[in-house]
Amino acid sequence: MFHSAEPFFRPKTVAIVGASESGGAGWPRAIYQNLEFANFPAEVYLINPRREELWGRKVYPDFASLPEQIDLALTIIPAEFIPDVLKEGTDNGLKSALIYAARFGEGGDDVGAKRADQLRDLCDETGLVVCGPNCMGAMSFPSNSLFYPATRIRGLPVGSTGVVFQSGGTFMFWLQRAAERGLGFSYAVSSGNELNLDLADYINFLVDDDDTKMIACMVEGIRRPDAFIEAARRALEAKKPVVMIKVGRSDAGKEAAQSHTGALASDDTVLEAVCHKYGVIRCHSLDEMMETCLVLNQRRWPKGPNIGMAGFSGGGKGLFLDYSADEGAAIGRLSDETVALIDPIIDPGLSGQNPIDCGAGIAYRQKDYSKVCKIMAADDGVDIIAMQGQLPTTADDPTDATIFSNVFDATDKPVIAYVRVSQNVSPAGLAFQNETKVPFVQGLPQTVRALQGLVRYTDAMNKGVTPLLEADGDKADLEGEAFETLLNVNGLTPPASGFGATPEEAAKAAASMGFPVVLKIVSPQASHKTEVGGVALNLDDEVSVIAAAEEMTTRLHAVDPDAEVEGFLVQEMVSGTEVIIGVREDPQFGPFMVVGLGGILVEAMRDVSFRMLPVGDVDAREMLDELRGKAILGAFRGSAPRDIDALVKAMCGLSEIFARHRNHLADLEVNPIIVGAEGEGLRAVDVRPVWR
Amino acid sequence: MFHSAEPFFRPKTVAIVGASESGGAGWPRAIYQNLEFANFPAEVYLINPRREELWGRKVYPDFASLPEQIDLALTIIPAEFIPDVLKEGTDNGLKSALIYAARFGEGGDDVGAKRADQLRDLCDETGLVVCGPNCMGAMSFPSNSLFYPATRIRGLPVGSTGVVFQSGGTFMFWLQRAAERGLGFSYAVSSGNELNLDLADYINFLVDDDDTKMIACMVEGIRRPDAFIEAARRALEAKKPVVMIKVGRSDAGKEAAQSHTGALASDDTVLEAVCHKYGVIRCHSLDEMMETCLVLNQRRWPKGPNIGMAGFSGGGKGLFLDYSADEGAAIGRLSDETVALIDPIIDPGLSGQNPIDCGAGIAYRQKDYSKVCKIMAADDGVDIIAMQGQLPTTADDPTDATIFSNVFDATDKPVIAYVRVSQNVSPAGLAFQNETKVPFVQGLPQTVRALQGLVRYTDAMNKGVTPLLEADGDKADLEGEAFETLLNVNGLTPPASGFGATPEEAAKAAASMGFPVVLKIVSPQASHKTEVGGVALNLDDEVSVIAAAEEMTTRLHAVDPDAEVEGFLVQEMVSGTEVIIGVREDPQFGPFMVVGLGGILVEAMRDVSFRMLPVGDVDAREMLDELRGKAILGAFRGSAPRDIDALVKAMCGLSEIFARHRNHLADLEVNPIIVGAEGEGLRAVDVRPVWR
Repeated sequence: MFHSAEPFFRPKTVAIVGASESGGAGWPRAIYQNLEFANFPAEVYLINPRREELWGRKVYPDFASLPEQIDLALTIIPAEFIPDVLKEGTDNGLKSALIYAARFGEGGDDVGAKRADQLRDLCDETGLVVCGPNCMGAMSFPSNSLFYPATRIRGLPVGSTGVVFQSGGTFMFWLQRAAERGLGFSYAVSSGNELNLDLADYINFLVDDDDTKMIACMVEGIRRPDAFIEAARRALEAKKPVVMIKVGRSDAGKEAAQSHTGALASDDTVLEAVCHKYGVIRCHSLDEMMETCLVLNQRRWPKGPNIGMAGFSGGGKGLFLDYSADEGAAIGRLSDETVALIDPIIDPGLSGQNPIDCGAGIAYRQKDYSKVCKIMAADDGVDIIAMQGQLPTTADDPTDATIFSNVFDATDKPVIAYVRVSQNVSPAGLAFQNETKVPFVQGLPQTVRALQGLVRYTDAMNKGVTPLLEADGDKADLEGEAFETLLNVNGLTPPASGFGATPEEAAKAAASMGFPVVLKIVSPQASHKTEVGGVALNLDDEVSVIAAAEEMTTRLHAVDPDAEVEGFLVQEMVSGTEVIIGVREDPQFGPFMVVGLGGILVEAMRDVSFRMLPVGDVDAREMLDELRGKAILGAFRGSAPRDIDALVKAMCGLSEIFARHRNHLADLEVNPIIVGAEGEGLRAVDVRPVWR
Repeated sequence: MFHSAEPFFRPKTVAIVGASESGGAGWPRAIYQNLEFANFPAEVYLINPRREELWGRKVYPDFASLPEQIDLALTIIPAEFIPDVLKEGTDNGLKSALIYAARFGEGGDDVGAKRADQLRDLCDETGLVVCGPNCMGAMSFPSNSLFYPATRIRGLPVGSTGVVFQSGGTFMFWLQRAAERGLGFSYAVSSGNELNLDLADYINFLVDDDDTKMIACMVEGIRRPDAFIEAARRALEAKKPVVMIKVGRSDAGKEAAQSHTGALASDDTVLEAVCHKYGVIRCHSLDEMMETCLVLNQRRWPKGPNIGMAGFSGGGKGLFLDYSADEGAAIGRLSDETVALIDPIIDPGLSGQNPIDCGAGIAYRQKDYSKVCKIMAADDGVDIIAMQGQLPTTADDPTDATIFSNVFDATDKPVIAYVRVSQNVSPAGLAFQNETKVPFVQGLPQTVRALQGLVRYTDAMNKGVTPLLEADGDKADLEGEAFETLLNVNGLTPPASGFGATPEEAAKAAASMGFPVVLKIVSPQASHKTEVGGVALNLDDEVSVIAAAEEMTTRLHAVDPDAEVEGFLVQEMVSGTEVIIGVREDPQFGPFMVVGLGGILVEAMRDVSFRMLPVGDVDAREMLDELRGKAILGAFRGSAPRDIDALVKAMCGLSEIFARHRNHLADLEVNPIIVGAEGEGLRAVDVRPVWR
């Protein structure tokens, strides 16, 4: 499933192809100087058929003339020469190549596309792995190998963050800013157009790399969803958080399919569900991605979601609470004993309950402030400690790092400092941050979001990934009475129903079932029944059934004179709250479930939530809790709370049915499902399978 | 309506009350040193009855002994002495005071509250104005008067931003950060608990001050809403943007009142509507407030909302588009001629249509990049120019400021640079920013939000504030037939209706009106009719009316045996899309309107939008456009688009009725209003006035 990035990231021999003093916009020289600066971490050879010597080194005309096999070729030659040159390379044992150049079919250029195909074939035939094209290179920090065409990027710190950016223009800028904020790096790659090595391959490499503890990605598109999922699953298992910013969230929804489920799910919502399942932390901005990495860098996993906050600005506390409400962050509750310990330390008139405003006075008694935080950290009511703080800007600033490091040392819970307004982080500030052992997260919204990322990641890590059931279901299970039984067993109780080929037969079927009933026309030309008036509710006697059946036939024929009426479905009239549940196979990421409330409004309001399959009890309850209109499921305007347990059972059941029969199903939607009051169960009124 | 902050911000004589070398945590000394540093911008006197000389100056025992009257007393003495000391001051002509100390009744302390009352009385009697208590002081930058108890705050740059922070803990930190980003200040005040001078007074002073061009506020609570509104109105008229961050957005909704309108409106939604009307720009974070001020500082008002974006990172462009979609920002369209001019300048294969990715190549041809931006700026399709950029970190960085300043000089449209990841802004970076004449907005989400703030502000400025009609309506207009006529004239057409005191009379009323009808029970005990089953729809004949009336009586008596049934309302059965419109007098900010869709779901989903009265045609259409579920009003699932014009007319009509009769009305709600298809009008089914 994965190509190995090993020869690319850890080459023992490197060739600069197109080596020249001033050619290639100075890139060959800059790359050579970077290798020289690092004291040649690999054996370096120069290739250029039009030269014999450069920088005091012999220049070879081709790979064949080199004294040894090459692990990595850095190609700084025009696109048109690359396929032939790399062919000559692989003939002589070349293992990997980095292609900076563009023009491999981007933007629909035919010649370039052919060139790309040629290269893909070469990779397939020879096992050559390629980074790029159209990229800015890569860095292996453990060996200080900077395969990057500019010298100003030297001095980035070694650390444990692996970086994969599809956007070459943002790559170095983000690395430099993140370094200023205190992050260090293991491997970093600008992956470009990913002709061969792709996001999944790089993540997979970084999961196996001992130096890497987390992975930051800027993603424009995921080329191999199955490989990405497998890499993300491996990363979660290895406790290496993957943090991602995705470009292009605002894509239009996928083309409307045969179901609402399809129309409701955009590419991005499905990706969001994938990230949720595999604990991939999505960031809203490049800034937030830096801050989130700093928080994760502490590698402390909270036991629960509850934040304990202490500071000495009432305004700061108020904003912290606002952002927590925005993000659904939990604010922990301290025990009475803890509050009693804290109360006498803080300013008079203020409360020792979390979140704690210690008062302006404590700014002059920083050791007391530290003590308050230590006391809070010892309380089981909080899982994460967030302390107000700011970094000194000059080295002679009198701030005392032990105020923070003492709290960090006194607990095994995550401890962070929040800075209310983004600061310039000076070298003195960074040194102070390192001394405190605590990240100083810049900006309050970023702080709360980074902590929520930590909480969600830990949750996903603890849950682990439940594998999907084998898709070994029998198609016969999905037909006739077998299907009815299967639905029933899985909590998807259908309403009592019958069929009549004519209005009169429908009336008889209704009478034998008991009134009131619902009548639905059955016709291939009436797939959206409400739009053609093909549904009649609350029919009380046989006469009404016959009249309704005749009216809907007339209405359908008014729209489509040739419409064929196969008959009429008669169903038990059920009342309750309308819900839609659908499961669908996403062609990229696999099966997912959508749930929403309220029939027609689910489409207008898009108040839905998504999960990848399998959906278990906990997931189902989370999904319902995410709905903005969830109040409707509770005691709402005089009606009793709905039967949530029955709905959860139905969701889990639908997940299981789909998973086992996805060899036959493309989509399976229950719309509407009518949920009764607590204890009264539900009715799956309309179940619509779409075959593969 | 306003207290004058003049003697406070522009004192000619100042007394430091409680002057001592080491007392008051060193604050008197720090304040004195700040005045000394500024070469004594006012005549300074020291007061302390227990001293005779300090810092080479004579110390006076009290105000009476001073050689002249004092404009401003800086009090650094314990709270308990302040009322008497200031009394002695006003006896001797004291005009204003700054009280740093707390303990004036915060947190429910009785002694302190009494002290505050004493002080309020003194202000009322003598005209003394007071800043604080519980604050960190103030700064008058034109005269370099730093009434702030720390010397490290010197060197903040003079400029045109006035600053009012209720949060003293955040005040100086924000000023310092904002200065690093390039803002300069006119006046800045930590307003504390606002016993006397308040937010509205300070804004009002800054509106009249020639040096101030915009006003940045951090607000925890608005003490005098009417004065705040008047100050905001004056600021808008003077084209001085007010930028605000409000703490405590997440307050729970106001206590449910007699109407849905009341329950739907939290304090914050009403404040939001006030800000919309008066062009107050609300910021989501303290960081965003800095960036927004930098954008406004250019004082260029866009002619429309359309952003033109140019850069050389595809990833950056993608993120810019994502954030624009999030915020509803408009991306302009360039003419074919403009695109034809741009196409040959940028990298091959890329499009010259906005937003423009010039390609990585142009990073090496910055003059061409500048040219692209100039060409774009000349196109009528864009109103604001956003250029990718980043600030140099060292003075020897080769970046050329004319790349940006040439674009700025070539157009009168706002021009900003967007920085994809927040940078450390060094003094060299700041100098470069000044040279370019263009703010380098840090972070992409902040960029888009700041530009949206600029667009909304300009829109409010151009619209101006329409005054409310005189509240001279007659109460008789709101009763019986007169009310029906008033509603009709204002587009709130009621359905045909009748009344029956008994089930039989109701049936007769229905027959004379024509079937089908709706029946509603009339009883003081059945105010939420649907909850007690007091509404029956679609009744087709007299028998059904009688049966329904009897059933609902039985149901009501089952809930409340003593319920009195006054009779039954019979109404024309109308069908269409349910909407709620309500107008209500907010006790703080005055009358506002809410509109929402879909009956019961308006409450569960809270899909509503708000405006302050008066609501005109443009406002009404904007309000409908803000609804998440607005698709329901269009062609939706087979039904024709709704009659938006009729709905807009009804909204304007309701606004007018309420404005003219708000001397009698506390609340006027139409729920539901049933909107028919285009051209078919609407029916205001249930109109409920609540009297003052």
